[in-house]
Amino acid sequence: MNLDDYRIADEPFYRPVADEIALFEAAYGDRLPVMLKGPTGCGKTRFVEHMAWRLGRPLITVACHEDMTASDLAGRFLLSPEGTVWHDGPLTTAVRHGAICYLDEIVEARQDTTVVIHPLTDARRVLPLDKHNEVIQAHSDFALTISYNPGYQSAVKDLKESTKQRFVAIEFSYPERDVEAAIVAREAGVESGLADVLVAIGARSRNLRGQGLDEGASTRMLIHAGRLVRAGMPIETATRSAIVLPITDDADMREALSGAVAACIA
Amino acid sequence: MNLDDYRIADEPFYRPVADEIALFEAAYGDRLPVMLKGPTGCGKTRFVEHMAWRLGRPLITVACHEDMTASDLAGRFLLSPEGTVWHDGPLTTAVRHGAICYLDEIVEARQDTTVVIHPLTDARRVLPLDKHNEVIQAHSDFALTISYNPGYQSAVKDLKESTKQRFVAIEFSYPERDVEAAIVAREAGVESGLADVLVAIGARSRNLRGQGLDEGASTRMLIHAGRLVRAGMPIETATRSAIVLPITDDADMREALSGAVAACIA
Amino acid sequence: MNLDDYRIADEPFYRPVADEIALFEAAYGDRLPVMLKGPTGCGKTRFVEHMAWRLGRPLITVACHEDMTASDLAGRFLLSPEGTVWHDGPLTTAVRHGAICYLDEIVEARQDTTVVIHPLTDARRVLPLDKHNEVIQAHSDFALTISYNPGYQSAVKDLKESTKQRFVAIEFSYPERDVEAAIVAREAGVESGLADVLVAIGARSRNLRGQGLDEGASTRMLIHAGRLVRAGMPIETATRSAIVLPITDDADMREALSGAVAACIA
Amino acid sequence: MNLDDYRIADEPFYRPVADEIALFEAAYGDRLPVMLKGPTGCGKTRFVEHMAWRLGRPLITVACHEDMTASDLAGRFLLSPEGTVWHDGPLTTAVRHGAICYLDEIVEARQDTTVVIHPLTDARRVLPLDKHNEVIQAHSDFALTISYNPGYQSAVKDLKESTKQRFVAIEFSYPERDVEAAIVAREAGVESGLADVLVAIGARSRNLRGQGLDEGASTRMLIHAGRLVRAGMPIETATRSAIVLPITDDADMREALSGAVAACIA
Amino acid sequence: MNLDDYRIADEPFYRPVADEIALFEAAYGDRLPVMLKGPTGCGKTRFVEHMAWRLGRPLITVACHEDMTASDLAGRFLLSPEGTVWHDGPLTTAVRHGAICYLDEIVEARQDTTVVIHPLTDARRVLPLDKHNEVIQAHSDFALTISYNPGYQSAVKDLKESTKQRFVAIEFSYPERDVEAAIVAREAGVESGLADVLVAIGARSRNLRGQGLDEGASTRMLIHAGRLVRAGMPIETATRSAIVLPITDDADMREALSGAVAACIA
Amino acid sequence: MNLDDYRIADEPFYRPVADEIALFEAAYGDRLPVMLKGPTGCGKTRFVEHMAWRLGRPLITVACHEDMTASDLAGRFLLSPEGTVWHDGPLTTAVRHGAICYLDEIVEARQDTTVVIHPLTDARRVLPLDKHNEVIQAHSDFALTISYNPGYQSAVKDLKESTKQRFVAIEFSYPERDVEAAIVAREAGVESGLADVLVAIGARSRNLRGQGLDEGASTRMLIHAGRLVRAGMPIETATRSAIVLPITDDADMREALSGAVAACIA
Repeated sequence: MNLDDYRIADEPFYRPVADEIALFEAAYGDRLPVMLKGPTGCGKTRFVEHMAWRLGRPLITVACHEDMTASDLAGRFLLSPEGTVWHDGPLTTAVRHGAICYLDEIVEARQDTTVVIHPLTDARRVLPLDKHNEVIQAHSDFALTISYNPGYQSAVKDLKESTKQRFVAIEFSYPERDVEAAIVAREAGVESGLADVLVAIGARSRNLRGQGLDEGASTRMLIHAGRLVRAGMPIETATRSAIVLPITDDADMREALSGAVAACIA
Repeated sequence: MNLDDYRIADEPFYRPVADEIALFEAAYGDRLPVMLKGPTGCGKTRFVEHMAWRLGRPLITVACHEDMTASDLAGRFLLSPEGTVWHDGPLTTAVRHGAICYLDEIVEARQDTTVVIHPLTDARRVLPLDKHNEVIQAHSDFALTISYNPGYQSAVKDLKESTKQRFVAIEFSYPERDVEAAIVAREAGVESGLADVLVAIGARSRNLRGQGLDEGASTRMLIHAGRLVRAGMPIETATRSAIVLPITDDADMREALSGAVAACIA
Repeated sequence: MNLDDYRIADEPFYRPVADEIALFEAAYGDRLPVMLKGPTGCGKTRFVEHMAWRLGRPLITVACHEDMTASDLAGRFLLSPEGTVWHDGPLTTAVRHGAICYLDEIVEARQDTTVVIHPLTDARRVLPLDKHNEVIQAHSDFALTISYNPGYQSAVKDLKESTKQRFVAIEFSYPERDVEAAIVAREAGVESGLADVLVAIGARSRNLRGQGLDEGASTRMLIHAGRLVRAGMPIETATRSAIVLPITDDADMREALSGAVAACIA
Repeated sequence: MNLDDYRIADEPFYRPVADEIALFEAAYGDRLPVMLKGPTGCGKTRFVEHMAWRLGRPLITVACHEDMTASDLAGRFLLSPEGTVWHDGPLTTAVRHGAICYLDEIVEARQDTTVVIHPLTDARRVLPLDKHNEVIQAHSDFALTISYNPGYQSAVKDLKESTKQRFVAIEFSYPERDVEAAIVAREAGVESGLADVLVAIGARSRNLRGQGLDEGASTRMLIHAGRLVRAGMPIETATRSAIVLPITDDADMREALSGAVAACIA
Repeated sequence: MNLDDYRIADEPFYRPVADEIALFEAAYGDRLPVMLKGPTGCGKTRFVEHMAWRLGRPLITVACHEDMTASDLAGRFLLSPEGTVWHDGPLTTAVRHGAICYLDEIVEARQDTTVVIHPLTDARRVLPLDKHNEVIQAHSDFALTISYNPGYQSAVKDLKESTKQRFVAIEFSYPERDVEAAIVAREAGVESGLADVLVAIGARSRNLRGQGLDEGASTRMLIHAGRLVRAGMPIETATRSAIVLPITDDADMREALSGAVAACIA
Repeated sequence: MNLDDYRIADEPFYRPVADEIALFEAAYGDRLPVMLKGPTGCGKTRFVEHMAWRLGRPLITVACHEDMTASDLAGRFLLSPEGTVWHDGPLTTAVRHGAICYLDEIVEARQDTTVVIHPLTDARRVLPLDKHNEVIQAHSDFALTISYNPGYQSAVKDLKESTKQRFVAIEFSYPERDVEAAIVAREAGVESGLADVLVAIGARSRNLRGQGLDEGASTRMLIHAGRLVRAGMPIETATRSAIVLPITDDADMREALSGAVAACIA
């Protein structure tokens, strides 16, 4: 097994907001499991990619979903052209060969997945593969990171206390304005003036959260808008297509957002 | 693998309404994922066929549904007469060989499908095929387009914010009257006078939306009515069969629609 | 593949009520998909058999149900004594070889079935068989017909607007009295006097619909009663067994129906 | 295939109540499908066994249940020691070889089972076995009988109108006292005096139906009590064990039933 | 097949309460199906073991549960190292070779299991194994016994009337004090003074049933407490561990129970 | 089968709180099944590891979850590269070879799992492996232990009375302050002054339970905080990351917890 496909060759651009890099390094040093908390599109995935690069570890990312089971993470026997062969799942690959495993929105997965990670997140650091007659002692480089969006959780879908208490948490929010403008300018390839305008639009949209919007515009959306402008679209069209229309179908909210856009452009 | 079956040989007839062609070209130029929003039968499928033809790219269309899973999109090992063989799903075919993949009403599919598209819709542009031990870097021509009908969504069935925010959106509505009349005349093979009458009927039906009708008559229904007239049916019979009866079972609403038809014919 | 099993050798007896034959012929001429609407047992199945005979096309009928999936219609690989072989479903057989496919009460089936018919019911006229690596262009004789009983539909189980709008509709109701009496006399092998009485009983039962009865007696039930009389049962016993008892368990409604029977017999 | 296992060698004891034998014979003569309606344990199963014996036809009985599917009735390919072989289900066996098929409480089964019987219950009399590439024309001796307990049906679990209207119905109730006493004496092997007492107890229990009892004591329970007495148990113990305890857990209802027993014994 | 593993070599200790032994013998003599009714831990399982020993019949016990299906009882084809072989389920083993089959809490199983036993519990005494092409006539020694805890049943989970009425019932309750004390002394190996105290505690706990306790302490719990005392634990600790803590998490109820314990010990 | 992988080589650090060690030894001496009750992270898993070490028995731990079935515990035939082979599940391994089996939070598993343990927890001490044609008499060293968190249980998810009453229970709570401080100091490698502060923070968090917190901070969380401090993080950052953020997303509760932290640090 070669983990080189999972190594991150180039430094992912990341602008730290607080002490999150030091915290992650401290947790990784002790191999404490880490939970990244925060809203959509605020940079959690980018952060974990940056940390994997910084620590020189391969990163295996798994986007969890409702139909994901423990076998999807741990592995199974597969009928392949060579006959029945055991196939390590992505978590097992990380545990066996020493990668950072990032389970994105693990709360979406079925409950058996959270139980699989329990013996990996206490003093034992083992992964029992019952069907493969194997108990894997985790590679010394292995560490587990999960993400968790507090805005999504509901009574029926939340991590159990006995899972939550196994993680140290790092909280994320949208970056400060100047940081975000630098990110937008760099990622969209636009000049800083436009980036400032887009960031101002994003800030206004986030103020509307809870007043009819589920979430404000993410940094990603601001980058999308910037790219459309760079491709020749007028800024009104670009922000409408990249920010207003995807975020809401409510006529009043669209008008409010469009007004915010107009105010920022003016 | 030969994508020629998915190439569109003849220009699909499409009458632009606003700047949607430029927007789609800008998004495709940057390979930004695109979401087409709008009601039933207003031309979203036709538009994406037109754009695939215009951009010279093969188009793979997938009509999503409640029982569709990630494996239906990505692929699976199949028991075939040649034994167990890996079978690329339609999304994988598009990613690997460079087609535009159009996921029609993706919100109907099970949640694991939306997770599959996440790593294809950010900077990574990869499709991990865990069971096939493969991570596909998307072909440079690949792009993703989805459709979304805001009138259908409910609390239990909606795209997650973290999915929505990955797309730039283009909004569709019914075409302007003269545009629609030209479409009807061309597609049904009827003269423009009849087309004008049918478009007038369509417009009236759309005004009844929300007053007992879920949706007004689509352009497609107007074309159906035109074809029945061309086949020799009286216009009253044709519009009743192609428009009134399919759209509603409510006696009052049928009377209202029939009145609208009579007024337009007169 | 030989479709002869699906050809209808003898003219199915059908007495037209209005212009439904001309309408179906017009729709079939343009291969427009047809939706037959109307209550239980009013002759929709008989009509489509008659039309298939009249047009000289084989007819493949599929009774849809809650557990029916797209694969039941389209086909699948089956483990058969000869090994794994692809097996065309009934819809695929019709599409490939040019039959009329009649999906009876399609709304009962799971949603993926309705999506399967979408690309067959617009300009494309194709059936993608993803698992068989095949996209079938429909045979020029192929046409699709569905039935739809408005009295059955509920909020949770209805065709989507985007499906409904693909069909032209023909509405059915119970036949006129003299027509129905002719049918009953012919099918049950009874004299016209008895047929008249039975039809009068049927008409009374239909007036009770909505006052405690879900549906009135179908023509089929009247024929059953006629046959029991022909087999020697008294008319009171025959109508009780063929009409009253199957239709309701409510004591008051049974009394009302029995009174109606007595009045007609007298 | 040898249906001899399904032939009924000895006349099942059955005491007719009304004209049900003539009705069943009339229906069978025309191969009309028959629905037997009535409460638990009133003799429906015994009646159909008697009729199969009287008509000299093999009888295939299927007790339907919630998890029964169309394949359980029609058949499937099975992995057997000889490899993959097609296995006719009980309905198919009856259709192919000419038995009476009795579907006991078909409403309990999943909806796809009721759809399977539709083409067998109209003029077509065919059973399409899609997976076996076969359409079976029913054997001329084949007939279908179902049972239906009106007291069980609920809104979520009932036959569809389009199914009900395919059957002629015969209604059953508990036998008259002298008939029932003769049955109890014969089946339990007890003298007629005891049988009279047990039948009187049964009659009293049936009067309590709707006042706290779901159903009164069936004839079968009276026979059980008779047998326990014949085996040496006191009549109080026998009736308590065979009638009172199985029927209810409610203390008041038990007291009422015990009082009824005491009154009949005295 | 050798049923010796299921024979009970040594007489299971059982102290009769009333005429239950005679009743069971009478029912078994006629092979009437038996239903044992009563609360948790009052000796139903012990009774059936005692009766199997007394009658010299092997006993096959099946603990039913929510996920149990008819195939779990009847059998299925299994992929074993020798290839595909038919595997009799426990019910089939009992039917074929003549054991008493005890279905513990059958109401917990899925409904298809109750249907499986119907033809075994009337005059037919057959078990149809449809998939194995076999109808087994029950061995003359076979008999069926089920247990049923009236305190557990709910509207959604109860035996159907048509199932209940097939059984004669024997009711169980906790044994009389002196009987229970003898059982506790014998099974826990403690002197009768301690046994009396434990039985007094049990009696008090049963009085609290319905006032916050779902069930009182079973005889088994009293034995557990006795054993802990014999192993050297103080009686307060033993009763708390074996009775109070397992039975309730409610602080008030724990206090009430502890008070009852203290009163009995004093 | 070699159970050495499951032996615990080094004494797990455990500070007894009351008589739980003697109780467990008494229960194990008689092989009584044991239920450990108590909140998350209070040391139940550590205790059972300590007892397994103390008694010199291998320990097989199974973390139960919603999708766990009886086969996951007992075993199944697996398709492996060597063909179809029987694979003992973890419970079967323990029963057969004489380990202590610890089912962590068994109430999370599906109900069939609890039924599997019934015959192991009464006088029979057997594990029937129906599919493997085997009834295993438990090894004399085998014992069963389960955990149960009373705070988690709900009406829909609780052990049945007939299961609960099979166990003797030992109750756990958080350790006394000095005991917990010793644990934290030892496990986190921090000096006792810091450990005292962390324990004080833990105590305050537990007082908030029921006032908006589901559970207070576990000992594990205090250890995490200690480790982050040892890795160089300020105590405010460490406690926020290890305690406050994982435990709650409520702003008021976070403020209350942060105030408690500040008060303890000061």
